[in-house]
Amino acid sequence: MKKVRLGIVGLGRLGMRHAETARYCVRGAELVAACSLNPAELAGVKEQLGVEHCYSDFGQMIAGAGIDAVLVVSSSSEHVSHITQALDAGLHVFSEKPLGTTIEECRTAEKSVETHRNLVFMLGFMRRFDPSYAYAKRQIAAGAVGQPFMVRAYGLDPDALIDGALRFAATSGGIFLDMMIHDIDLARWFLGAEATMVHAIGGTFKYPDFALHGDVDNATALMQFEGGGMALFFTGRTAAHGYHIETEIVGTEGQIRIDGVPRKNRVTLYSERGTSEACVEAFPERFGEAFTLEIQEFVDCIREGRRPEVSVHDGTRATAVAYAATESLRSGKPVYLSPR
Amino acid sequence: MKKVRLGIVGLGRLGMRHAETARYCVRGAELVAACSLNPAELAGVKEQLGVEHCYSDFGQMIAGAGIDAVLVVSSSSEHVSHITQALDAGLHVFSEKPLGTTIEECRTAEKSVETHRNLVFMLGFMRRFDPSYAYAKRQIAAGAVGQPFMVRAYGLDPDALIDGALRFAATSGGIFLDMMIHDIDLARWFLGAEATMVHAIGGTFKYPDFALHGDVDNATALMQFEGGGMALFFTGRTAAHGYHIETEIVGTEGQIRIDGVPRKNRVTLYSERGTSEACVEAFPERFGEAFTLEIQEFVDCIREGRRPEVSVHDGTRATAVAYAATESLRSGKPVYLSPR
Amino acid sequence: MKKVRLGIVGLGRLGMRHAETARYCVRGAELVAACSLNPAELAGVKEQLGVEHCYSDFGQMIAGAGIDAVLVVSSSSEHVSHITQALDAGLHVFSEKPLGTTIEECRTAEKSVETHRNLVFMLGFMRRFDPSYAYAKRQIAAGAVGQPFMVRAYGLDPDALIDGALRFAATSGGIFLDMMIHDIDLARWFLGAEATMVHAIGGTFKYPDFALHGDVDNATALMQFEGGGMALFFTGRTAAHGYHIETEIVGTEGQIRIDGVPRKNRVTLYSERGTSEACVEAFPERFGEAFTLEIQEFVDCIREGRRPEVSVHDGTRATAVAYAATESLRSGKPVYLSPR
Amino acid sequence: MKKVRLGIVGLGRLGMRHAETARYCVRGAELVAACSLNPAELAGVKEQLGVEHCYSDFGQMIAGAGIDAVLVVSSSSEHVSHITQALDAGLHVFSEKPLGTTIEECRTAEKSVETHRNLVFMLGFMRRFDPSYAYAKRQIAAGAVGQPFMVRAYGLDPDALIDGALRFAATSGGIFLDMMIHDIDLARWFLGAEATMVHAIGGTFKYPDFALHGDVDNATALMQFEGGGMALFFTGRTAAHGYHIETEIVGTEGQIRIDGVPRKNRVTLYSERGTSEACVEAFPERFGEAFTLEIQEFVDCIREGRRPEVSVHDGTRATAVAYAATESLRSGKPVYLSPR
Repeated sequence: MKKVRLGIVGLGRLGMRHAETARYCVRGAELVAACSLNPAELAGVKEQLGVEHCYSDFGQMIAGAGIDAVLVVSSSSEHVSHITQALDAGLHVFSEKPLGTTIEECRTAEKSVETHRNLVFMLGFMRRFDPSYAYAKRQIAAGAVGQPFMVRAYGLDPDALIDGALRFAATSGGIFLDMMIHDIDLARWFLGAEATMVHAIGGTFKYPDFALHGDVDNATALMQFEGGGMALFFTGRTAAHGYHIETEIVGTEGQIRIDGVPRKNRVTLYSERGTSEACVEAFPERFGEAFTLEIQEFVDCIREGRRPEVSVHDGTRATAVAYAATESLRSGKPVYLSPR
Repeated sequence: MKKVRLGIVGLGRLGMRHAETARYCVRGAELVAACSLNPAELAGVKEQLGVEHCYSDFGQMIAGAGIDAVLVVSSSSEHVSHITQALDAGLHVFSEKPLGTTIEECRTAEKSVETHRNLVFMLGFMRRFDPSYAYAKRQIAAGAVGQPFMVRAYGLDPDALIDGALRFAATSGGIFLDMMIHDIDLARWFLGAEATMVHAIGGTFKYPDFALHGDVDNATALMQFEGGGMALFFTGRTAAHGYHIETEIVGTEGQIRIDGVPRKNRVTLYSERGTSEACVEAFPERFGEAFTLEIQEFVDCIREGRRPEVSVHDGTRATAVAYAATESLRSGKPVYLSPR
Repeated sequence: MKKVRLGIVGLGRLGMRHAETARYCVRGAELVAACSLNPAELAGVKEQLGVEHCYSDFGQMIAGAGIDAVLVVSSSSEHVSHITQALDAGLHVFSEKPLGTTIEECRTAEKSVETHRNLVFMLGFMRRFDPSYAYAKRQIAAGAVGQPFMVRAYGLDPDALIDGALRFAATSGGIFLDMMIHDIDLARWFLGAEATMVHAIGGTFKYPDFALHGDVDNATALMQFEGGGMALFFTGRTAAHGYHIETEIVGTEGQIRIDGVPRKNRVTLYSERGTSEACVEAFPERFGEAFTLEIQEFVDCIREGRRPEVSVHDGTRATAVAYAATESLRSGKPVYLSPR
Repeated sequence: MKKVRLGIVGLGRLGMRHAETARYCVRGAELVAACSLNPAELAGVKEQLGVEHCYSDFGQMIAGAGIDAVLVVSSSSEHVSHITQALDAGLHVFSEKPLGTTIEECRTAEKSVETHRNLVFMLGFMRRFDPSYAYAKRQIAAGAVGQPFMVRAYGLDPDALIDGALRFAATSGGIFLDMMIHDIDLARWFLGAEATMVHAIGGTFKYPDFALHGDVDNATALMQFEGGGMALFFTGRTAAHGYHIETEIVGTEGQIRIDGVPRKNRVTLYSERGTSEACVEAFPERFGEAFTLEIQEFVDCIREGRRPEVSVHDGTRATAVAYAATESLRSGKPVYLSPR
């Protein structure tokens, strides 16, 4: 079977990671084109990864590189534009989250995806591809916890990376769109239902500067779902111990917890401070394997004519809930959503 | 120093436990009197614990047994009556939670305690005396997590004891007054602040019969506190694995988790099912030591002329929040509280 | 049923602990007499524990105090003398380990116990009474690991207590008799067999002064048992993290590990150092409950006419193996034992 | 820099894994040739991995394929022959363990490696490349445990794979050469010293058929090292819970444990059986990343003109110790080794 020819747009930190993954770790595909406005990034990808065709213009890449599919890792505000252009050009599309920066953008993307039903579209909710999350999902499907009715989700960024978060604060979209959106997707995925109520609160407990942008450094939220399911969220930017993504699914017959102790590795130190375990430092370390597996799944879907489990609708819906959480934070009141 | 002479009222399961504790494990005290309407219970306490003076009438016990202090373990609806009678008779009082079954009852108890400032009054929020909780509190006071701003509290009863919970459903006061009240006290204690908003949701996910009494089998809640602190609660009656009380305190410089894995003991089994650890079965097993330590603290306060850390106000306040949670569950809306 | 009247000989640190246990925590017994050559200790026990009869002469106590049983917590070299005197006086005897300081002394004690078959004799291998060890034993008896064939035992004293260990080095009997003897008993207990070969090695890796007394600060040993069972031992005095007693029993269908992480309590700290758990500091903290339960079992055996599971033979046999280990360390060769 | 052209000999399970690693996951290299006596294996590697040049004769591959380096994954008895032929042909060599099946073979390999000092030779002690082991090594080098003096090593194969082990029993070389050799290498590596005494015992506790080949299903060993260091080994083929490689390094100021609970992933299940964690099933799952990293290191050493940390001497020495352990098991006595 012919290899899928991939192009990538956006070569920032995450873009470079996806480029490396596409170049070295994915079977059945080859990375042949890259697009960036930054000449240094293009030079780097050419030299280090041997990418043949480099572009500063997205339109030129999708028209001229002879590619089958595009990885969209551009800035959030460009996602929808790149998605629709690529689909219209007959290319399969993988897009990083968020789908769009407004609900309207998400709807535009949805329409474009629906118009091009023969093309594969996949959104980068990579946690679903992490082996532990995938294992939990399979266990739950096999009945290990009975009927799930509650999800608790922690999404904590390390305090060690706060400088970057502060610099990014003006354009991040806020803690719910930037961070909690992953947990919102997980809760929807595990409960198999849509949120009907969101009540979010938060504050700047350590870094008051987030308030300058209407944002917070830590937030919590309560959600209710169709059918009565519940979820508790805790999202923060100040975790002293590292990058801590913890998810718990509670059902009528048991519960599953993913990563209560976000261990860096299998080492335990016994010292005068007791026993201790180093923690994962940041998301590339925690979800490196998931990044590879999601791109592999995208390629496999193209080659096998399958649809990815993560749909464009997941992107729209998670974005809608994240916006509702933002609104709740600002208003001090719960926000009620129509599930469809 | 003279031993404190103790009397006890109420000899149900928890009463009998307190009686044994008072008889065998507390230093500086002796259990000399007991009161119950159930002759078999009185006979038991006389024979097994050698209690000298047995009464079916509470007034007679506090007047005639020559006791210094009373342990109130009667049914919840009698707590305030027994508390006020004992205080008026010049006796120190330890009362099981809840302080009262209505806020009005709590206010009555508060006034009685305030009137008798020379007498020791203590409420049975025993978790504060558990060595792990007390250690966490000391660590936090020493700065281990910086400034606490978030508490997560799980209070899960074992599914194995559901029959008792169902029988008790009509009179329990509901999941918030019966169970979450302990977690509410912990959140107030660790955050050092009072709740200003409660939003609770819940459902009958496994046992629809709870709905017959306006109750649920599992509930979650979001709370906000004075100064901006936050709390997430999950209270349930259907935990397959046992009795699971987990509390996490998150601060600006770290976080402390108490009992993420509610281990029964120090044994790990490696078997064809992987590795596993048995869990605590019920509250007497988990908090046995705390029950002893709280009664010891009560006795020590009497002997040393100290005031217990757990005040009557803690009882009133936790009850008020539990009622607010109940109201929120029923109304589907958040309830806002005046913190004082 | 009449209470068992207890006397105690030896009021050092462990003696005082047993006295407190006997005074406060044991049901069906009362501590009425104490013997020590140290007047301050006697004054302390009289004042703090209200012991009526105090003696500086052991003979006077067993003859004149009207006691039913004796707790022998004197110095190791006096154990056998106190045991035989007490048994000859018709008293039940609980003795701390070691049974004796030589095999000959152990044999003397064995003969005395055999002569007085109507009296209860129990040796203080308290670990067997620890709830985790007792639970493991029951699980194994129920088939949880199939047929046990290997035991691994760690017995690590905290480096924080090294000063005491160094002071005690001249008279401790060495690391095998002083420390590993408990692990030897556990291996015999779990395998249900006697050792036939011991090969021990060790060294002074941190504190050369132990060598002045022919002792080491850390030692390991390999043992073989009747029927082919095996055991690995690691005993040390320099554990940075605290008091670490870990035991693993491996069988044909599974394995059980007791205390791979010697947690102080149920608290986990998440801090810039990762996640950490404080460790148990010393044996009274780790085995406090076991100390109570073993004395309770001794009293219950007296009252119920039962024989304790820990026999005088266990003391002799464990001592013989500890001596063999000492000999192996010194000779650099394995020592073979006749199992009977 | 030019890519390293790799050939592989041996396409059994491990060989196929190495071939896939070389094909997909290693940077700076390409797999261009393969050799096997099995036509089906060659066809598979050609089709699935696109290997250009396939051979049934090793001599032809090293002469005619234009390769720079060989991965030797042939049967153990052929290792030395393939190593020496490849080195003589001027090729760099990576060889799976064991280096040879006799000490004499190992010496032959050593001489060949020493003769070709300009060529890279590396032995597949892959555990050293596992991220947890590498992290532990770095921590120890940074002083985290002070001076290491004791190593405990578990190497347990899953009972679920016993059929393969039984079939392989006649030719495996026995439990020490087949399995414990990895742990022997780790103990040497962490202690930085050579073994001077080995005392091994074992038995057939579950599968008597191993005795037909002079082998056992479980074994333990005590070792002493130059300078006094100690090691405890437990190697078994009957672990109910899975593949369990656990290593502990104890030093004067702390200890490091690697994988006390051999978790399959980050999931904890809370069910009516308590809490449980699935375990790693077999070595490819546990050491998949290490397999990639070791081949990457081999390639990097060739490209950068470095020597791998794992030398041919490590192979000879570990083999010598494994033979000594075998001799000890058979004789029932310790075996003393000259460390050089």
